[in-house]
Amino acid sequence: MRIREVIVTPIAFADPPLLNAVGVHEPWALRSIIELVCDDGVIGLGESYGDERFLGLLREAAERLPGLDVFDLNGVRGAVEESRGAFADSHGLTGGSTPSKTLLSIFSAFEVACLDAQGKAIGRPVVDLLGGKVRDTVPFSAYLFYKWAGHPGAEPDGWGEALDPDGIVAQARRLIDLHGFGSIKLKGGVMPVEEEIEAVRALRRAFPEAPLRIDPNAKWGVETSVKVAADLDGVLEYLEDPTPGIPRMAEVARRVNAPLATNMCVVAFEHIPEAVRLGAIGVLLSDHHYWGGLSLTQDVSTLCETFGIGLSMHSNSHLGISLAAMVHVAAATRHLSYACDTHRPWQGSDDVIEAGPMTFVDGAVAVPGGPGLGVELDRDALARLHEQYLSCGLRHRDDTAYMRSIEPGFEPDLGRW
Amino acid sequence: MRIREVIVTPIAFADPPLLNAVGVHEPWALRSIIELVCDDGVIGLGESYGDERFLGLLREAAERLPGLDVFDLNGVRGAVEESRGAFADSHGLTGGSTPSKTLLSIFSAFEVACLDAQGKAIGRPVVDLLGGKVRDTVPFSAYLFYKWAGHPGAEPDGWGEALDPDGIVAQARRLIDLHGFGSIKLKGGVMPVEEEIEAVRALRRAFPEAPLRIDPNAKWGVETSVKVAADLDGVLEYLEDPTPGIPRMAEVARRVNAPLATNMCVVAFEHIPEAVRLGAIGVLLSDHHYWGGLSLTQDVSTLCETFGIGLSMHSNSHLGISLAAMVHVAAATRHLSYACDTHRPWQGSDDVIEAGPMTFVDGAVAVPGGPGLGVELDRDALARLHEQYLSCGLRHRDDTAYMRSIEPGFEPDLGRW
Ligand SMILES: [Mg+2]
Ligand SMILES: [Mg+2]
Repeated sequence: MRIREVIVTPIAFADPPLLNAVGVHEPWALRSIIELVCDDGVIGLGESYGDERFLGLLREAAERLPGLDVFDLNGVRGAVEESRGAFADSHGLTGGSTPSKTLLSIFSAFEVACLDAQGKAIGRPVVDLLGGKVRDTVPFSAYLFYKWAGHPGAEPDGWGEALDPDGIVAQARRLIDLHGFGSIKLKGGVMPVEEEIEAVRALRRAFPEAPLRIDPNAKWGVETSVKVAADLDGVLEYLEDPTPGIPRMAEVARRVNAPLATNMCVVAFEHIPEAVRLGAIGVLLSDHHYWGGLSLTQDVSTLCETFGIGLSMHSNSHLGISLAAMVHVAAATRHLSYACDTHRPWQGSDDVIEAGPMTFVDGAVAVPGGPGLGVELDRDALARLHEQYLSCGLRHRDDTAYMRSIEPGFEPDLGRW
Repeated sequence: MRIREVIVTPIAFADPPLLNAVGVHEPWALRSIIELVCDDGVIGLGESYGDERFLGLLREAAERLPGLDVFDLNGVRGAVEESRGAFADSHGLTGGSTPSKTLLSIFSAFEVACLDAQGKAIGRPVVDLLGGKVRDTVPFSAYLFYKWAGHPGAEPDGWGEALDPDGIVAQARRLIDLHGFGSIKLKGGVMPVEEEIEAVRALRRAFPEAPLRIDPNAKWGVETSVKVAADLDGVLEYLEDPTPGIPRMAEVARRVNAPLATNMCVVAFEHIPEAVRLGAIGVLLSDHHYWGGLSLTQDVSTLCETFGIGLSMHSNSHLGISLAAMVHVAAATRHLSYACDTHRPWQGSDDVIEAGPMTFVDGAVAVPGGPGLGVELDRDALARLHEQYLSCGLRHRDDTAYMRSIEPGFEPDLGRW
């Protein structure tokens, strides 16, 4: 079953003003939707980053794919290797780019689409191509953000302002009421450290049973990280990327009880040896979008299991094709033992899949049972979101520039506090 | 596609008196042939160890498999986990047993059979289920053994005696004439060290271009290992298991130039962290039979690539189902960069697959293109080899006891020289 044509469609969807260590989400989030059209009419779907430079790399690689068999993932990877240029990660919250991470990010978009096509061709869900289900539903965490009431100059977005512990607890309550999440993650690195500690304490009081995490995206220095961990000792399930770089993470790890998690200092295979040698991390947040797809995410799992490192899952702003892919690989990966991250609730009813966004029940998504990823493209929605891409004017994500357009003196430096 | 019945058939085939560090191959080698009979009539094939205790564990696990889907490899693994007892590796040349190695050895036999059934069901070769071919043919090495002319009391076996450098070179010449091998491996740990060094030197003179390896199965101490490596500096592609245990391997590794390879000190995932920490090995000889099957062998490859460890492939005495499985996984595994080991030529025309043994052309086996493993069971041959199992009387491999029946004072201790 050979690839006849590859269509890469950039889309934009509305995104609330979610605050983080390097700035604030712009009004539009960008993604790419990949369609692998096969010679027998099957279409394999993928979803990935939508920054303009990444789109260029995707398209450059896409030109080399026609004629390849969708089961020939090594051939697809080879084609990507031959095509790739340079790609710099502009927002920096997933650890910057390396040549191998770039390659694996491009490959991942096509690998998922190939697996979707394989599954559709043989009438099997993708989870069956990954070893079969070890769980029927995949739990996600409530992903809390400090946020403004709305984008400056626009109407409030309906999520409400969250700039203090009460706002954070109210946001958690709302996400949990809507989706039933059992775990909670707070995106930190935004407010003075004492306020973020207080927000976590408020969450603990409001939700005594929920595992809690905070992720300041490496905004803190070593001493601050150690102090936060001490203040919140026994409260956190894990402390995510308190400080930048493997050596500093290792120093923090030596001095605190909570496991340190990362999607910033270990984001490619070449980072693993140093992290292992220094004992820098206790949990890796995998993300198939940059670890090279679903199959390599399972290899990452085996790596983590071998070295006694826990496995959780990272997310950027995404829609339903990515969510389906995350659910299939999470369902097939036994070592993944934490609730996964997802930004999906922040996108409201916007999606590119038929029947709209997948549903969270008790905070979990049921593994789709249909062939492939088990989701179909809603072509009207795709056209609408592509129109939004064309009209919104954004071509790459830049949380810092957007923040500086509002607060000119804003400083994004990691490790600064 | 569900498993209806699992048939485990023990077989025996003639084996020449191949000498190694712990003794000598007995006149019969034992294996098990696994048939997964599925509800739609597809039969998935596997091949593994044939020792009686292992057969018991296979059968215990096999009882739990009916009703499982052949795509549900995680379910099969779960069933094996529920069934497993204790299994001690009696010959010790693959590093003894651990509970995880036992589990993964049992699982592997069924995983391969499931993949064969999957491929047959969807009309795809197994290599396509593993990511597709990165090579069309898989190179193997000529596997040389010191040997007697025949088993004591029996006729000479036609391979001839090989007890000195001339005999070893003649054996290499014959294997290369028959099969075209481009790499050569000498099983050592048998003769006084100086004689084995001289045999390698004779091979270098006779085959100036062939990559050479020697594997004394950890019969040597650290000082001997260092001396051999110094004497053969620049001659060996790698030095395989010169001495027992990760710490001693690490000491040798620090003092010699040749990469150290192993299928003895790193034989389960739990051995990898220490080997990495101490820098004990430069090459891992993978073996899907105890690393948990074809998919986990690819995870091992990713692990090795991540830590800068080369990947080669180990073999025990085996027939064509195992060879087909080795070829499929090797063909799909990009990081595997050495010619693989195989005992297959020593089994002559005996096999359980239709059309007899797979052919080596220029030392390599072409990846079968048919569905699944691409081999079919020859039921007459299976019946004959099962009869041999029943009549031969052997129920487990014991190279040492057999050697002592001939040389009562024989000492198998590893690390002794
Ligand atoms: Mg993070
Ligand atoms: Mg060996």
